[in-house]
Amino acid sequence: MEEKKDILSLDKFSTDEIYDFLKQTDSFAEILKRDVKKVPALRGKTIINLFFESSTRTKVSFEIAAKRLSADLINFSVSSSSLKKGESEIDTLKTINSMKIDLVIIRHCDSGYVNYLAKNIDASVINAGDGKHEHPTQALLDLYTIYKNFQVLDGLKVAIVGDILNSRVARSDIKLFSKMGMNVTVVAPSMLLPENFGFFDVKITDNIDKVISEVDVLYMLRMQFERQDRKFYPSIREYNKFLSLNCERMSVMKKDSIVMHPGPVNRDIEISNEIMEMSESDKNRIKINTQITNGVAVRMALLYYALG
Amino acid sequence: MEEKKDILSLDKFSTDEIYDFLKQTDSFAEILKRDVKKVPALRGKTIINLFFESSTRTKVSFEIAAKRLSADLINFSVSSSSLKKGESEIDTLKTINSMKIDLVIIRHCDSGYVNYLAKNIDASVINAGDGKHEHPTQALLDLYTIYKNFQVLDGLKVAIVGDILNSRVARSDIKLFSKMGMNVTVVAPSMLLPENFGFFDVKITDNIDKVISEVDVLYMLRMQFERQDRKFYPSIREYNKFLSLNCERMSVMKKDSIVMHPGPVNRDIEISNEIMEMSESDKNRIKINTQITNGVAVRMALLYYALG
Amino acid sequence: MEEKKDILSLDKFSTDEIYDFLKQTDSFAEILKRDVKKVPALRGKTIINLFFESSTRTKVSFEIAAKRLSADLINFSVSSSSLKKGESEIDTLKTINSMKIDLVIIRHCDSGYVNYLAKNIDASVINAGDGKHEHPTQALLDLYTIYKNFQVLDGLKVAIVGDILNSRVARSDIKLFSKMGMNVTVVAPSMLLPENFGFFDVKITDNIDKVISEVDVLYMLRMQFERQDRKFYPSIREYNKFLSLNCERMSVMKKDSIVMHPGPVNRDIEISNEIMEMSESDKNRIKINTQITNGVAVRMALLYYALG
Repeated sequence: MEEKKDILSLDKFSTDEIYDFLKQTDSFAEILKRDVKKVPALRGKTIINLFFESSTRTKVSFEIAAKRLSADLINFSVSSSSLKKGESEIDTLKTINSMKIDLVIIRHCDSGYVNYLAKNIDASVINAGDGKHEHPTQALLDLYTIYKNFQVLDGLKVAIVGDILNSRVARSDIKLFSKMGMNVTVVAPSMLLPENFGFFDVKITDNIDKVISEVDVLYMLRMQFERQDRKFYPSIREYNKFLSLNCERMSVMKKDSIVMHPGPVNRDIEISNEIMEMSESDKNRIKINTQITNGVAVRMALLYYALG
Repeated sequence: MEEKKDILSLDKFSTDEIYDFLKQTDSFAEILKRDVKKVPALRGKTIINLFFESSTRTKVSFEIAAKRLSADLINFSVSSSSLKKGESEIDTLKTINSMKIDLVIIRHCDSGYVNYLAKNIDASVINAGDGKHEHPTQALLDLYTIYKNFQVLDGLKVAIVGDILNSRVARSDIKLFSKMGMNVTVVAPSMLLPENFGFFDVKITDNIDKVISEVDVLYMLRMQFERQDRKFYPSIREYNKFLSLNCERMSVMKKDSIVMHPGPVNRDIEISNEIMEMSESDKNRIKINTQITNGVAVRMALLYYALG
Repeated sequence: MEEKKDILSLDKFSTDEIYDFLKQTDSFAEILKRDVKKVPALRGKTIINLFFESSTRTKVSFEIAAKRLSADLINFSVSSSSLKKGESEIDTLKTINSMKIDLVIIRHCDSGYVNYLAKNIDASVINAGDGKHEHPTQALLDLYTIYKNFQVLDGLKVAIVGDILNSRVARSDIKLFSKMGMNVTVVAPSMLLPENFGFFDVKITDNIDKVISEVDVLYMLRMQFERQDRKFYPSIREYNKFLSLNCERMSVMKKDSIVMHPGPVNRDIEISNEIMEMSESDKNRIKINTQITNGVAVRMALLYYALG
């Protein structure tokens, strides 16, 4: 049997393979501009959306991606499942696997748990976010958004700002951006950094004003209140003082720089309401909606890689 | 860019355009009598069912309509969404919009709010019921049901009975039926009428017995207990005395008159259990199930109008 | 009108007809081994999954079966439905029926209630489990699993072990296995047997050790804690003493015998964790995952029978 093609993180892919994903995404992004946005690439394939943690955009983004490739996608809602009957998660997954489905998209609240689940089934697995660990499809859509804007990646300056500690997006983005030759600075006070953060070879500062005028990409992280066991950051006032994006700060950014956020934005925390309410034309450097649009094309490329 | 085709209410459509909808519905109703009830009219189109308020029949009716036109329909359940994470409804909608879907079907509990949402996105919007305001697809299926029964609309006498105050069906039906030349009488005590009801140019009475022998169409509204802030109507006994349909009252109706209800019926409140339990052949003048059947064809026609 | 083809139980089918189902299942099982596991057999047919009781494997199994036959399947989640608005279950079903769908798959917690519902609608009905009464699709997939293993049915010795009282699987399996010429022994203490159990013409014993060395098929039932009004069985220790399967007991079974369970297994109650954790190759006589795989093919055969 051919080895199954899991996408649990992007670590195992070379820079060439990452560029191949970006090119493949380009071709699917073209399809999404057509009137009929559907191709028969994965007709007859069955995909399960297995979300042990609630989600809006990622789950629907995968569902749209799957249907545009003509795959059959089945949402497996855990709350309405047999888990109430005391069935273990691994038995749930083995049950799904026994139904001979082709791929399972899994989100789980425990860091690293998706790796464990993937080892125990025959179907391919795509990690749609596991705890504070990895979120590879988000990292690739972020990279694609940057790539489409600048046409190059090598040498770009990126600041990733905010709640690094609780963010799987930060972890996956830092690794991928660094691999592709970008210079990554992390902006966070020590209380929003993991203890073993020296593992990542990036610059660290605790004040957005120290880097904002130099960066090409300002990546604002969502404050993950729901993943914080206790309140790590003293106050919103302090957050706004050192970490938030507002119009005043945006005015010192380079003219061709862009702003990104994985969404949903906590308005007036990571990004001011004033910026969020700007007209579409004024905020064309704010790439939040572009990231979402690109997410569908990126996920089509990854589904096609795993099953095509 | 061509203007997008929203259906927020039927006010903007001329009587000719309404007749066009009825004819289009006829052609889809024919398809639904076939063994294979599916046409490729909307293949490759992506539709989102976005219900901020729970629903059975309308949501499933739209899902069936979309699938019979070969569109991809994605149910977006709000309770399992990021709204828990503090994402605002408008940001949810903009996220969906950024995924380049073609149409969003929205139900919302706030009157007029669907209009606001529609203004903020590129995708077409169909209003599947907003608060006490509008329910255009219900109004059109009601009209189609009447049209199919009488072959004419102009001059028909209709009584709309019950909880006008809390009913978006009443509001949309009154406007549409009047526009198409029908004579509308509203049967409700003042406490079940809105304060500004003089806006509608219809006759008003407070006792079903004053009109029941003359009407061609008796339209019984659902008592919207769940939308009443307090108990507006004194008692079920009083409701039965002035507003309910029972066998005795049905016996004085014209022989070719029909009875309608948007469903689900509160048995022994709006309509007696005795009538609901009549055999199908005896109650062929009760059009409740016909309305549901017609709803699928009407929604196919409206989806086709918006996207075809 | 042709009579509609319900599958409420398997009682009405002759042994020849049951063998026809097994052959039909074989042909669909072949399709499931292909790379593209989809055929257009039920294109344009609309199927509703109507589960009044929560479920994992049966609901998803039917959804996969329907999609592999190219039918449109709509999940009707009861908790998110109008039942909250006081609509009765029969009115819900009549509403669905009025939308001219082709088949409804129903699971309900009341024994026999699916029969009542089926009588009241035009669409075909498949019983996906009703209370403690019947579970015909499970019985057929169990039979198919046995048939594929032994190539014969007549004369096989089967023991069905555990919570007979609360198990619709037991009821449907006992009847079907007996009809097909198998010798069925039930292993349960009197407190886990129904009062009228003399109705079934099977042997009864209260200790798994009295039969385990002789059987070809050891069918372990799930302990239905959630369907017990009170605690019928004294203790897990006593269950393990008389009814559980562990490695020691498995060692006395015939070499070519098999173990089955409808899932999900309560580990260390019906079957020991040690057996469940055996490597796949070691436990090829444990047919639990095979049953799940066969379930999809069996349900394709039954959907095709009802609608093809």
